[in-house]
Amino acid sequence: MIKEKQIIGYQFSDEGSETFFSYNPATSLNNEYAFSKAASAEVDKAVEKAAAAFQQYYKKSGEEKAVFLETIAAEIINAGDTLITVCSSETGLPQARIEGERGRTVNQLKMFAALLREGSWVDARIETAIPDRIPLPKPDIRYMHIAIGTVVVFGASNFPLAFSVAGGDTASALAAGCPVIVKAHSAHPATSAIVGKAIQTAARKTNMPDGVFSLLYGDGTTTGIQLVKHPHVKAVGFTGSYRAGKALYDAAVSRPEPIPVYAEMGSSNPVFILPNAMKEKGAAIAAAYSGSVTMGVGQFCTNPGILFYHANEDDSFKNNLKTEFEKTNAGVMLTPLMFKSYKEAVKQHLQVNGVEQLAVGAITTNNNGNNIATPVLFSTNSETFKNSPSLSEEIFGPASITVTTAGKNEMLEIATKLSGHLTATIHGTEDELDDYKELINILEQKVGRLVINGFPTGVEVCSAMVHGGPFPSTTDSKSTSVGTAAIYRFTRPVCYQNMPDSLLPLELKNKNTLMIWRLINGERTNKDLN
Amino acid sequence: MIKEKQIIGYQFSDEGSETFFSYNPATSLNNEYAFSKAASAEVDKAVEKAAAAFQQYYKKSGEEKAVFLETIAAEIINAGDTLITVCSSETGLPQARIEGERGRTVNQLKMFAALLREGSWVDARIETAIPDRIPLPKPDIRYMHIAIGTVVVFGASNFPLAFSVAGGDTASALAAGCPVIVKAHSAHPATSAIVGKAIQTAARKTNMPDGVFSLLYGDGTTTGIQLVKHPHVKAVGFTGSYRAGKALYDAAVSRPEPIPVYAEMGSSNPVFILPNAMKEKGAAIAAAYSGSVTMGVGQFCTNPGILFYHANEDDSFKNNLKTEFEKTNAGVMLTPLMFKSYKEAVKQHLQVNGVEQLAVGAITTNNNGNNIATPVLFSTNSETFKNSPSLSEEIFGPASITVTTAGKNEMLEIATKLSGHLTATIHGTEDELDDYKELINILEQKVGRLVINGFPTGVEVCSAMVHGGPFPSTTDSKSTSVGTAAIYRFTRPVCYQNMPDSLLPLELKNKNTLMIWRLINGERTNKDLN
Repeated sequence: MIKEKQIIGYQFSDEGSETFFSYNPATSLNNEYAFSKAASAEVDKAVEKAAAAFQQYYKKSGEEKAVFLETIAAEIINAGDTLITVCSSETGLPQARIEGERGRTVNQLKMFAALLREGSWVDARIETAIPDRIPLPKPDIRYMHIAIGTVVVFGASNFPLAFSVAGGDTASALAAGCPVIVKAHSAHPATSAIVGKAIQTAARKTNMPDGVFSLLYGDGTTTGIQLVKHPHVKAVGFTGSYRAGKALYDAAVSRPEPIPVYAEMGSSNPVFILPNAMKEKGAAIAAAYSGSVTMGVGQFCTNPGILFYHANEDDSFKNNLKTEFEKTNAGVMLTPLMFKSYKEAVKQHLQVNGVEQLAVGAITTNNNGNNIATPVLFSTNSETFKNSPSLSEEIFGPASITVTTAGKNEMLEIATKLSGHLTATIHGTEDELDDYKELINILEQKVGRLVINGFPTGVEVCSAMVHGGPFPSTTDSKSTSVGTAAIYRFTRPVCYQNMPDSLLPLELKNKNTLMIWRLINGERTNKDLN
Repeated sequence: MIKEKQIIGYQFSDEGSETFFSYNPATSLNNEYAFSKAASAEVDKAVEKAAAAFQQYYKKSGEEKAVFLETIAAEIINAGDTLITVCSSETGLPQARIEGERGRTVNQLKMFAALLREGSWVDARIETAIPDRIPLPKPDIRYMHIAIGTVVVFGASNFPLAFSVAGGDTASALAAGCPVIVKAHSAHPATSAIVGKAIQTAARKTNMPDGVFSLLYGDGTTTGIQLVKHPHVKAVGFTGSYRAGKALYDAAVSRPEPIPVYAEMGSSNPVFILPNAMKEKGAAIAAAYSGSVTMGVGQFCTNPGILFYHANEDDSFKNNLKTEFEKTNAGVMLTPLMFKSYKEAVKQHLQVNGVEQLAVGAITTNNNGNNIATPVLFSTNSETFKNSPSLSEEIFGPASITVTTAGKNEMLEIATKLSGHLTATIHGTEDELDDYKELINILEQKVGRLVINGFPTGVEVCSAMVHGGPFPSTTDSKSTSVGTAAIYRFTRPVCYQNMPDSLLPLELKNKNTLMIWRLINGERTNKDLN
């Protein structure tokens, strides 16, 4: 047995009395790594260290923070194959998938490092003084984004690397200038420990203040809530279930000082197939849809869960879907609890009058059947769908439902009634899309990302990504958790009035040594201010 | 008696049964304008109309919205002197002040019109496809801000024009593409009616959809809460007291679908005088501080309420303050309730052991003494201040307290313990400011605007302004309610994946016909995409 410890800044700590083990969902056996749940004093210690570290860390230059992020990336690579095998053993995810996710994690860190080096993200705005303005002089006002304070990050079960200890939330918060405390997900604590130590090493190597990063093990309901309620914590990043995300939100908004919670809580990502697209490429859509639903055992936030298409007398699309879906494979789910929830949700769908089981995926039995979810495709019609709100809810796992609609008007009606989702997708020919412009308009109001003639699974990490959407897909529709804009979750604007040039932050001085883009008296320029 | 009606889109409505009158705080008499509190059905009607109007309004071009805002500005000017005299009679504010505020209101509308015409505010980001990328093709992703939905605005008592019916919240929400429903402040309903009709006229003249604007009269606790709780309302703008703002926030976050509340709840705007500055220009600071405290009868959100300086044996600064403050004038407060609260707060301060009354302003008796607040300057030392949390709280009105500190370390200690404020101010010589860099660092974490060698009263309306700050000065430290960045309170980002060029919004098409600044594959440019 290897006992891992809480990472509290540059210290290791092991004061907790309740022990748990890393667990392998594919074998239903414990791994050799053991952990204590953080003691209350350890939680306080991590927050106090972070608050102290903040005073130095938020003043670090973009270059310094960039080097820190790149060193984290290098240390993650340094962790080598151990990271891959440990992560695979905790999540049931194939090694190739984890290797890919490691690449994404490293690239995210590098993307934020590049953002910091370029520097314009601070949105610097300068309005120069007009001392002789009538009736009142105009002062010199200079604006930029600064870090908000200590951030608590809750790792996601389904992205043990890319949305966990050194994932997108941590990378964007550290980039913003915020110390980070991660509450490790209990489904992959050993993976978390490896990555946490990589960050700790990188912080030391780059002379970051003690407390800029901590990693704690424990339950969401105790360790998690204690962190969210702590007065020195200023924002929260979370990816996971609606239930857990909403609980953190409720805790945060009822604090004496409310703080923002950026909870990405998943969604069922509706897909709309228009008639001509179905005619032209129905078979290809059926195959790709089946793959998109079941990719990663359906454990992505962006797997599509509902497919709408117009009912017609030609059964070929339905038959294609059935055939393609039956080719998909079962797979090990991340945790026994998720597997149990999946089975229950599938059962509940089948109990709805008017819902049929159209197809099930192939059942693989290569690991004794532990926590293996079989893909299921349901079908129903619009009447049943409209009368059964539970059918709109996400099933976390490789399940989806097809819904036939009576025509364009009913499709628009259903779209109008959708709640918030991370994504929506439309398949249509160009002419047809033009006819369905109203559907595009409705859906852009419901989602963070609208996909045309593609599939939502797979989130491109880039400057233009919005991985977010109206409630209940997130608790803050104005934010994204993927892409460079994610940094703004952890910053706020501040302005300086008549501040002497020598005391201004580098980004706001007359001389633009960083050569960043600034708005000077309403004009966008990367030149000096004369 | 003139009975005003609810403005519900292009209709007037008068279904309420409870009547109230416009009231003159300077005479304690009712004005001739009467109002009904909105009936519940009228509130629902306004929201339903707004939700319907949203579908057309958020698609209006920047040019169309700019013309709408400019027409509102013109219609406000068209309302002529009536607006000034009615507003003065409801608020006790002098006509010159209201004329100035009308100018600011009109300029705010024009500022947002200019922002819309320039167009780059949508933060357009384009990442082009790389179809042959290995291992996965990169899709085309395009990002921009769109309107969030119907916005409810609560007018502020202390800015009956600039932060009321057509004030900063309304201007920024309409600019964003959001229909607006204003809950008129009961302290200036007749002013609200005039401005509301100006907006209604402007909407008609520019062919805006019915429901893009409504104006309702009623209490915050009934009409206000009904609006905030309505499922079709998507955001709230508010300026006023902590109690009222926090109540709206609590209502909004406990909705089934939580929504953002941008409540600017005022603050006591601490001012720090460093020793050399005091030596060099103590008399001028004393005079300007007294003016800043009592300007507008102390009814600005940014009047400074606390002055810190180092205790010393030379009493000249204290004496200057006393002399200057005694020259300030009493004035009529906006409402009898505010006057009552002011008197109570002053009394409570004086009951604190260790607090002295250093000076009172001149008492004017030219209007029979109705609701006339006399300026009061308290003084105390740091020990008393630290032990009496009530002394940190804002007194709405022309009162302020001076606090002597034992030296730099104690000043830093007190600054560290401050809660969030809209502004903080430091007076110091350039060398001295460099010595007190730590104070600057502490204060920038506490406020939205840091003023050097000036006074916080008076908020410049420009692209670089932050009128906001950490809780409890606002409910969202990431926002500003003044300046062009205020628009982002009412927008959210959305991205389009592989959307055909013909269907993209104008801002995201390959050809940049609007010539806006965009981020294309990480590069900032106002050119077309080839």
